[in-house]
Formats: sequence, structure tokens, C-alpha cells
Amino acid sequence: MSDNGVSDNDISRRRLLATAGATGAAGLVLGGAGGAGVYAAATGSGASPDAKALASVGSTAAPFHGEHQAGITTPLQARGHLVAFDLAPGAGRKEAAALLRRWSAAARTMMAGEPFGDTDSGVALDAGPSSLTVTFGFGRTFFARTGLNSRRPAALDPLPDFSSDHLDARRSNGDLWVQIGADDALVAFHALRTIQREAGDAARVRWQMNGFNRSPGATAQPMTARNLMGQIDGTGNPKPSDADFDQRIFVPADGGAEGPEWMAGGSYAVVRRIRMLLDDWEKLARGEQEKVIGRKKSDGAPLTGGSETTELDLDKTGPDGKLVIPSNAHARISAPEQNGGAAMLRRPFSYHDGIGADGTPDAGLLFICWQADPLRGFVPVQRKLDRGDALSPFIRHEASGLFAVPGGARDGEYVGQRLLES
Amino acid sequence: MSDNGVSDNDISRRRLLATAGATGAAGLVLGGAGGAGVYAAATGSGASPDAKALASVGSTAAPFHGEHQAGITTPLQARGHLVAFDLAPGAGRKEAAALLRRWSAAARTMMAGEPFGDTDSGVALDAGPSSLTVTFGFGRTFFARTGLNSRRPAALDPLPDFSSDHLDARRSNGDLWVQIGADDALVAFHALRTIQREAGDAARVRWQMNGFNRSPGATAQPMTARNLMGQIDGTGNPKPSDADFDQRIFVPADGGAEGPEWMAGGSYAVVRRIRMLLDDWEKLARGEQEKVIGRKKSDGAPLTGGSETTELDLDKTGPDGKLVIPSNAHARISAPEQNGGAAMLRRPFSYHDGIGADGTPDAGLLFICWQADPLRGFVPVQRKLDRGDALSPFIRHEASGLFAVPGGARDGEYVGQRLLES
Repeated sequence: MSDNGVSDNDISRRRLLATAGATGAAGLVLGGAGGAGVYAAATGSGASPDAKALASVGSTAAPFHGEHQAGITTPLQARGHLVAFDLAPGAGRKEAAALLRRWSAAARTMMAGEPFGDTDSGVALDAGPSSLTVTFGFGRTFFARTGLNSRRPAALDPLPDFSSDHLDARRSNGDLWVQIGADDALVAFHALRTIQREAGDAARVRWQMNGFNRSPGATAQPMTARNLMGQIDGTGNPKPSDADFDQRIFVPADGGAEGPEWMAGGSYAVVRRIRMLLDDWEKLARGEQEKVIGRKKSDGAPLTGGSETTELDLDKTGPDGKLVIPSNAHARISAPEQNGGAAMLRRPFSYHDGIGADGTPDAGLLFICWQADPLRGFVPVQRKLDRGDALSPFIRHEASGLFAVPGGARDGEYVGQRLLES
Repeated sequence: MSDNGVSDNDISRRRLLATAGATGAAGLVLGGAGGAGVYAAATGSGASPDAKALASVGSTAAPFHGEHQAGITTPLQARGHLVAFDLAPGAGRKEAAALLRRWSAAARTMMAGEPFGDTDSGVALDAGPSSLTVTFGFGRTFFARTGLNSRRPAALDPLPDFSSDHLDARRSNGDLWVQIGADDALVAFHALRTIQREAGDAARVRWQMNGFNRSPGATAQPMTARNLMGQIDGTGNPKPSDADFDQRIFVPADGGAEGPEWMAGGSYAVVRRIRMLLDDWEKLARGEQEKVIGRKKSDGAPLTGGSETTELDLDKTGPDGKLVIPSNAHARISAPEQNGGAAMLRRPFSYHDGIGADGTPDAGLLFICWQADPLRGFVPVQRKLDRGDALSPFIRHEASGLFAVPGGARDGEYVGQRLLES
């Protein structure tokens, strides 16, 4: 991992980050031994496999500045923390603005792989940025507490109730939401503690959850993730190369019809803690599991044939005259073509908190999906799944959140400044 | 990661593993695209840095067979699960033997990166072995339940009480203990679930804990780990290259004075869940933290100078006439030279289970140490720390276990067979 490309000590990390943000590069590589300025630019998902192999896990950095916040189209990270805060009693718009300013400074510094402030705990020392992202969002209740109700997006209206919900209000929603992801667990933990410390007297933790994904290099090449049911999960995700990707995932630069202007370049995150009833699921034979999902477990190919990316043949019947992909199969019901083209970018973490109070694994999916408008993304799909998904008996939605995640901060700006100061 | 060395499709994974076990190689590299038999042999800690760089995270395997079980001298893994089981009512020696046979078969198969059995959940698919290790131990209570009290090692006598203990009996000890480690979280989770499934009706989970370490590649070169206090932790660990390493860590091949013959090549594991009172710790200035530890936070060097591996100068005084490394500094009190040469191999995982019932982080260290005799390893050091360690106010021992971990299984043998069948 030592010969990772171009070497140039004259360009500072800071400048590199700014450049990457301006040119829209989705990632860049810093580091080398001793933190010297050895680096190689890599353009995120567009990087060649060779460039990726040369970059070490620790030295990869996501840019803080940019049109969008990092952590939305950033490749899945090995470790994640979700944390929601409520503003402290007495804290209002002024305190919230100062908080977002502090948090943004902390995020920018840590995402560059540097310690933050005199009281840095040192937990992230030795490692590089490790693809750290820190992403900030506002919940519906934030706006009343800060006197900003008039600027609250309609898209933050509460999600409808679903019949299968078993939601714990104490672990749902919140004034503020922070998503932390990194490819190293200590780097992620350091970021979480730093964000908590910088909350100071302005905000208090409402809930906090930990998650994980594959480690970089665990598979021969980057692959669609598997979840804790063993299923390949994320095949149908829109791709940044799709012509309508930006339109579906991000609020337009002018705010558009969906959202207020301060949300330009932003996105709405729906967060669901979905427990998997693994003791029940694992009792099903593989063939039964595959009928529930509508795809083969081994490679995620539709039961109607092909490979993972082959389209479902929803009309195909077997020798018995029955649909090959059953009418209640999860893949059928959630297929975009069955939902008026509703699309969301799912970017989850798995979670596993040991054994729950009921003796079954407290494990499942921290489902996070991104869209320009939840009413045209998550809601119609979940409404349909709620009615007749064969997967429903094996999962339980235990917590829920909906957050407005503003666009990325411009140079010299903090995240949310356009809401809080204009 | 595609050009990782020698290619030879004619040698099966299984044969490779058997060979590696027989020759004592500590690790080997499997994998390549599509799971074909592309491989390169690497001798674990003896591998050259270049060979390590060429090996991908997923394709590294630890051998199941060998003189010692894997997971003791194996490099720290990114993810870990500890799980203790109690034998089910009515289960005795026969059921325990069948259980260890099933568990050994599962461990051997999964450590080779292969699915186990017809009902494999598929969670580890796509990834390679990812340095998976599964390590089995027996607790003191195992011997009475299986009618084997006469073969119980004296080394399993209960640990003494320490004044700083706040132990939760429900999360301590147990008839059986399994340590799972892997560099990929899904591979580790898959192994945990498989071990639980294979317990069948013979044993029930008593407690289960999750932990983590740095991801491979997060630092520029392999370094001593940091813990969640931000301290470099493990500097004083004995090295396999030390002349007396085997003698200190493993029971001799003839059983020796310490233990019964069935423990030949085995080791004793002391497991402590040590909560870190991080809210208090992080209030200390860095200089104060360094006096508590006796080492510099940045690089782990003694406060008396040098680098991480420089010996402590325990007599050195500063201009004020005071000891530079205070009399109650953690590094002083735990130094082997202060404990009659007591040595143990510490091989921990950090843990973080979110926010505890008291509102503070439920985080700290899953301390695991290995020694040929706990009375000459953990106990004298902990006794001394218990009396006057400056670190004590910032930590709390919340659970404890002591387990006899037998030697590795020979070819065709299962772990513990020499106890259960002779």
C-alpha cells in the first residue's frame, strides 16, 4: 500500500479538499506514512479498480464542502453511528446556529483526518480519515423550537402510520440528527464523541444507534451489500449515472417545487430501525426464503433468471401455472415499476445489539433512504409493502425518523447556515 | 487486489488448510475473484509487509488445526463477539462432546471461508474467511455438569474478589465460552449465529458481547492498538519472539505443573468487561491523563522519554523532585518488573453499546488476557492495580470470566476431545 500514486508535498490537505469539493470529485486519498502529503486523487465510484486497490483504507477522505453533504452518495462504510439530539430547554435559533457552526468545524476537521480542538480525545490518532462522513439533518420539531416554523418544509410532515409499525417514540425523530460513517470503528467512535462533546449545553442526546457494513476488501470487488438475513440488499438502487438521479434524490438548486430554497442541494432522510426476526427467518428453508424475497440468495438474481441486475419478469409463470415471483414477494412489491417509479437511495447499516429482552437477537437494519420528496419515495413503497409483503412476518419497524438534510456547506459556510442566518 | 501472487487451481482450499496446519503456518491467503483457488501462502506475523499488502482483507485465513487454537496469537481483528453458554438441563458429558464436535466442524468450515451445512444463512457469502477465528473454552461450572470434576484444572479456581469489582453475575462466567473474531462484521455475525444454531438443545446462551478494533489498513502500518480512552494499549505485551513466550502463555505439551494433560498447548483466558467512565476521563486535560497513565498520549512513549518501546525510567525525578512517572501511574503499577515478571498476553476488543441506563456511554474494553497460569498472570497484576492505580476512578469492572481454553485440535480431532473422550 506504499506506492499510492502521485506525490506532492506542496499542496496542503486543506487545499486538496477544497479542490475536490469544487470539481465535484466524490473522494480523494490522503496520507502515506507519517501523515505527509502523499496523495492520489480518486473520483469515488468512478475510480478505476487499480486506483482503489492502491488507496489504503485509512487515507481515503470524503470532502466536507460541496453541493451535497457527504454520507449520501459516499460508498457504504464499515461502521456507522446515528444520533439524534433535542435542543436543550431555553436553546433557540441563536444557540442552534452556534451549534451547527461548531459541529461543521468539527466535521470538516475530522473528515480531513485531523484532531479537533485542544481537548481532542486522541481516539482517532494513527488512523487517517478512513472515509469519515458526518451528515446533519433537522427534524420537524426543530422548527418550532427555533421560531422557524414558517420555513419548515412540507416534506417534514409526519409519515403516515403503517399497520406493521411497532415504533418506540423515545428512539424516533428528534430536533437534530447526525449520521456518522467511517471505515474504521475508532475513527467513527471518535467522531461520535466529538459531536456529543460539541453539543455542549445546547442539545442533549435523544437516541443513539450503532451499525456496520462489510469491511473494505472483504469481498474480491465492491459488491451490493448483504443484510443480516443473508440477502443481497440494494440491487434496485438508483445509480448516480442515471439521468434522473439528482432529480430523484436531491432538492434542486433553486429549491424547486418540493422544498424551501434553503434546502437546495439537500435531501430528505427516512430512518427506520427494522428489527429482523432472525430466529423465525432462519427456520425457513432457502427455497422458502427465496420465494419471500423473489430473488436467489446466492447472487440476488430474480427467480425468473439472469443475474443480479436482470429485470424481474413479473408475469412469468412456472410449470404449475403459478407466478415464479409470487404476488407477495418483497422484490415484486417494492419494484419501482410497481410504485409509479418511486425511487429512493437506500444506504443502510446493519445493526446488532446482542440479545434483546425477549431472548431473540436485537439485530436488523438501520434502514436509511434518501429522496427529494418522501411522499414520492419512501411513503408509497412502504404503504404497499405494509399491505402485502411476504417479508412482513419476519421484520418489525421499531423506530422511525424523518429529517431534512440541507445541501453541503460552501467554503466558509456551515451546514444549515442558509436556514439559520438568512 | 487482483494480482495477489501464485495461482494454482489444482490445490483445493481444504488441502491448503490442512497443509498450513501441519507446517505450523500462522495464516494463509485464499481467494481471488469468484472463489477460484487463487492463493498465496503467507506465514502470519512472519509475512513480509509486501505479502501483507498483496493479501486482501477477505482472503486471509487462520488455520483451524494446530498446536494452539486460533484467536490467541492471531493479530487483532476488526470485529469480535464473545458468547458464553450454559449446558441445558439434562445435558451432560455425551451431549457436550457432540456439541464440541459440531462446533469444531462449523469453526473449521467457516474459518476456511465456506458455508456450513444446508441451512447456512448466507450472511458471509461473497466475503472470504476474513481472518475468522472461533476459539472455545470451558468454565469452572462445566466440569461438575459433565461429571468431570476430577479433571478440572486448579487454575480454574475462582478469581479473588477485587475491591473495585462491580460484577454482574448474569454476564460473568458460564459453562462454555466462545470467542469469535474476524476482519469483517458480517463474517463475524454469521459465525456467531452459526455457533448459536449448532448449540441446538445442548446449551443456551448465558451472555453475549460485541467488540471491535481498528480496521486493517486504517493506519499506515500495523501499530499497537488504541483504546476508547485514546491510549495506546498493549505496548508491554510479550512477543511471540520472546524466548519465554510459549512458557508464559501456553500450558506445556506434557501438561506441565500447571495443568492437566488434556490442557497441553492450551491457555487460560481471563475476560473482564471494563467500562470506561468516558465523561469523567474526557474532562481531564491531556497532561493530567498522561500522568494517570505514565505515558504520552500521542505515541505511548514513557513520560521519562524515548519512544513507545523505551523502558520506563521508574526512578527518574523532575525539577520539582517528584517522580516523573507518578507512584500511582497505571504503567508503573502494571509493569512486569513491578509484578515479579508476571506476564499475560492482552488481546482485547473495545466495546460500545450506545448510552447506558445512567445516561453515560456504555463503552470500554472487553479485556481478554491469555496466560499459562492466571495466578502468575492476571491475578498479581490486578491485585496491585486494585490497590493504587490512578486509572481506577475512570474504569469499572462490570463482568468477569475465567476459562480453560484447550490446545488446538489435531487433524480429525475436535476441540476438547482429549478432555471429553479419554
